[in-house]
Amino acid sequence: MPATKAFAAADAKSPLGPFGFARRDPGPTEINIDILYCGVCHSDLHMARNEWGQTSYPLVPGHEIVGRVASTGSAVSKFKVGDIAAVGVIVDSCRHCEPCGRGEEHFCDEGSTLTYNAKDRVDGTTTMGGYSSNYVVDERFAHTVPSNLSLPAVAPLLCAGITTYSPLRHWNVGPGMKVGIVGLGGLGHMGLKFAHSFGAHTVQLTTSPKKKDDAIKLGADEVLVSTDAEAMKKHAKSFDFILDTASAPHALEPYLQLLKLDATMCLVGLPEKPPALSAFSLITKRVSIAGSMIGGMIETQQMLDYCGQHNITSEVEVIPIQQINEAFERMLKQDVKYRFVIDMSSLK
Amino acid sequence: MPATKAFAAADAKSPLGPFGFARRDPGPTEINIDILYCGVCHSDLHMARNEWGQTSYPLVPGHEIVGRVASTGSAVSKFKVGDIAAVGVIVDSCRHCEPCGRGEEHFCDEGSTLTYNAKDRVDGTTTMGGYSSNYVVDERFAHTVPSNLSLPAVAPLLCAGITTYSPLRHWNVGPGMKVGIVGLGGLGHMGLKFAHSFGAHTVQLTTSPKKKDDAIKLGADEVLVSTDAEAMKKHAKSFDFILDTASAPHALEPYLQLLKLDATMCLVGLPEKPPALSAFSLITKRVSIAGSMIGGMIETQQMLDYCGQHNITSEVEVIPIQQINEAFERMLKQDVKYRFVIDMSSLK
Repeated sequence: MPATKAFAAADAKSPLGPFGFARRDPGPTEINIDILYCGVCHSDLHMARNEWGQTSYPLVPGHEIVGRVASTGSAVSKFKVGDIAAVGVIVDSCRHCEPCGRGEEHFCDEGSTLTYNAKDRVDGTTTMGGYSSNYVVDERFAHTVPSNLSLPAVAPLLCAGITTYSPLRHWNVGPGMKVGIVGLGGLGHMGLKFAHSFGAHTVQLTTSPKKKDDAIKLGADEVLVSTDAEAMKKHAKSFDFILDTASAPHALEPYLQLLKLDATMCLVGLPEKPPALSAFSLITKRVSIAGSMIGGMIETQQMLDYCGQHNITSEVEVIPIQQINEAFERMLKQDVKYRFVIDMSSLK
Repeated sequence: MPATKAFAAADAKSPLGPFGFARRDPGPTEINIDILYCGVCHSDLHMARNEWGQTSYPLVPGHEIVGRVASTGSAVSKFKVGDIAAVGVIVDSCRHCEPCGRGEEHFCDEGSTLTYNAKDRVDGTTTMGGYSSNYVVDERFAHTVPSNLSLPAVAPLLCAGITTYSPLRHWNVGPGMKVGIVGLGGLGHMGLKFAHSFGAHTVQLTTSPKKKDDAIKLGADEVLVSTDAEAMKKHAKSFDFILDTASAPHALEPYLQLLKLDATMCLVGLPEKPPALSAFSLITKRVSIAGSMIGGMIETQQMLDYCGQHNITSEVEVIPIQQINEAFERMLKQDVKYRFVIDMSSLK
């Protein structure tokens, strides 16, 4: 059993600190990955502080993992030792239900296994995430990484990337469409890059006029400041699709006003307080509010391959693991452009 | 100008009482309808009491109108004197925008003209509804009525009928689908009849176990009592579509749990308090909450023709206009199976 170094939360109140545990040796279809980089997702903070009331301690967060394959089980075909591999938000599922059958393991009827704080289907232990030196995972739940991409900037694709890529694909975002991205954070900046890359007229919606230049640099064709009532009115009923990535509590109504007849706004953020739903907006234009959550293994690989072809990665600030608690605080103040990524060599 | 007898609300606090006014003579494309029956919609009560804060007094409510053509303008082609004609929630629109062009006048870019309490596009007066002896309307906004249907039972089709027919058609409800109807009132009982008639396995969702027998009689293939947690659990993730007709404040979450992956729940009721929207439910199954509002003129005629072919009408309790205030009170207590309809001969 490899001895795994990690950073863990011991309880909801304490900062994360050094922690050691053992992972199993890889089974026949599993690989053992030496983690090089792990992105810092807002969920990591929620879970560390038990803000969703479901955390088991000690908790090792981290589900945006990029590393190098250190060993492989006897039946592994997708990876060989030395390859780069990436792991996202889920590491297992029932593998036999209808959604699993079509590669939508994130919608597994029996529930997929999360990368951390979940019951491992193989050995019954609690899964420990990527703020650690290595991860053992079935090759079905690991992805290959295009060789032209910068590895720290790839890590956030595994959650922030696929979470925005998947709904933009599902709702067929492309040329001829006007698409809004609400929020310019870890998720939002990826949504912006993808929507623009897919050929849509992409409008960054933000409450901060000072984010305008950055949004344009990242690919926005237009920036709409949502506190500018006059500007919002001009854009009323003009959007084909809106991707709402904001996780801070916010009113949905102003964005629903922007939608065309029969258009959809998709939520991917998880506000702590459920927003009020004005049925009036839905009814008068037959619009929909939908939700979307990460993506399946097939689509995650497609997203990584697409990123390789179009040279798309996340904007990141690389930190040593020792700065994780400070990074959490800065994340709360939205003081990051646009995702922290931990350099795991700092664990050694 | 015909002298029109009516019942009107003089202000938000007073009961409706007798009122007289004049309607214009029909223009070239207009017809003058002697009203035989007018359905009593919950909106009539909301508007009479100014519960949406937009009522002009005196208010003559009523937008579920069936009557006999008394005179026609020189260019009218669809009706002749003596024909039965029906009018619903809207009586005009811009007629040149994109939605109007495809017969979706209810989504008119410039706003459609409501049958009462709206500014008349022709003469600038405030529209007065169907709790009256006659109505003057452009033939485009009047419908023919199949001769085999009972006229009082046709009246509610003009609002309750089309409001449920349209979303069931839009989301392609039919054989092989499991469809839920939330609420068994004026709208709900029509949704139930239509969904069953379209060939879907139709499940009536209700908080009252005592409504079970009636729901089965009206066409439910199954009744699910939403307060029965065990039964609700058994039906989790099994519905292809849910039509939510409840206008009393209610939680959406229990119904969202019933939806399959990628399924839609459509709201047609207008709860006074916007319900809280749990993003979690939307996200974990990529489900949608949508809204729908009446239907366009083409679809309303299709609905009436369909009702003629399949002998579908509303369940009604016919009252004289003098009982309208009592009917409002009984409606508030849900003491009606399932729609009051005013016999307008009582006005004379």
